[in-house]
Amino acid sequence: MTPDNMAGLVVGEGCFYTESRPDGKYRLGWRIRPGFCIEMRNDDRDVLEQVREHMRCGSIYTLDFGRYRGYESRGWKPHAKYRVSSIRDLHNEVVPFFRRHPLFGRKKEAFDVFAELVEALYGGKHRCPQGIDNARHLAELLGAHNARGRSPRSPVEGRLFSN
Amino acid sequence: MTPDNMAGLVVGEGCFYTESRPDGKYRLGWRIRPGFCIEMRNDDRDVLEQVREHMRCGSIYTLDFGRYRGYESRGWKPHAKYRVSSIRDLHNEVVPFFRRHPLFGRKKEAFDVFAELVEALYGGKHRCPQGIDNARHLAELLGAHNARGRSPRSPVEGRLFSN
Repeated sequence: MTPDNMAGLVVGEGCFYTESRPDGKYRLGWRIRPGFCIEMRNDDRDVLEQVREHMRCGSIYTLDFGRYRGYESRGWKPHAKYRVSSIRDLHNEVVPFFRRHPLFGRKKEAFDVFAELVEALYGGKHRCPQGIDNARHLAELLGAHNARGRSPRSPVEGRLFSN
Repeated sequence: MTPDNMAGLVVGEGCFYTESRPDGKYRLGWRIRPGFCIEMRNDDRDVLEQVREHMRCGSIYTLDFGRYRGYESRGWKPHAKYRVSSIRDLHNEVVPFFRRHPLFGRKKEAFDVFAELVEALYGGKHRCPQGIDNARHLAELLGAHNARGRSPRSPVEGRLFSN
């Protein structure tokens, strides 16, 4: 799998998403946690291993909870997910990778918003009221991008976004 | 979109499938019609246009029938599909493209069966009883590959296969 293969795969299967919700444990009462993931069938886990090698971060886990529970009775095969949620890894590895190996189509638009959000969070700009407002706005844009036009087979990470 | 981007996209979103069913209009009573397609949201139609440029064949159409009918009321956006079903184009363009720019993971396995089927059909090997048996066997393998482990969001071209 070449880096360009990887970018093409992400256009099809990758998801740049963010959690954004009130949380009293945070100083400004709001928690924003972006992430990047790719989900595939567990028997394509080798592909996810190669993704992790390219990204030099992240982890892979088997999906056997939530909507996946009881997958066998529904005729599904087990799925696996590669995920990066560390802001440092997103900033130092994921965003630079897709700047070197550009995405295309609508996924590129989602990535651009995501990259701006990651930079704002990594730089600590969200630690003042104006900064958190801007970060929430970016999270809203990204959530809307992921949620609208959900298809019968598109990922639903967008629903993690709640405002 | 580079050729390697295109291969990566196909690992995520492409489908190598075949129709295989009894048909009295055919000399040996059986019809086998392979095809290659990629489906995306209609607002990513530009991506499909680029796919068509790489493939130098095929056509793009809007999906507004079958399971897509009434998509708006289900909160879906319109989708579009790129498809190649001409055996000549599959043989002369699609198969050679993915030999030059290899796929990976399970999609590569599906492609290998598909390529063998396309070559058998293009070479006219299915015009004798033994040949049609072999082509039906390949179609069965491909159908099984596409059908098993269907996920909540995987394509359903596999169901075109009926034996």
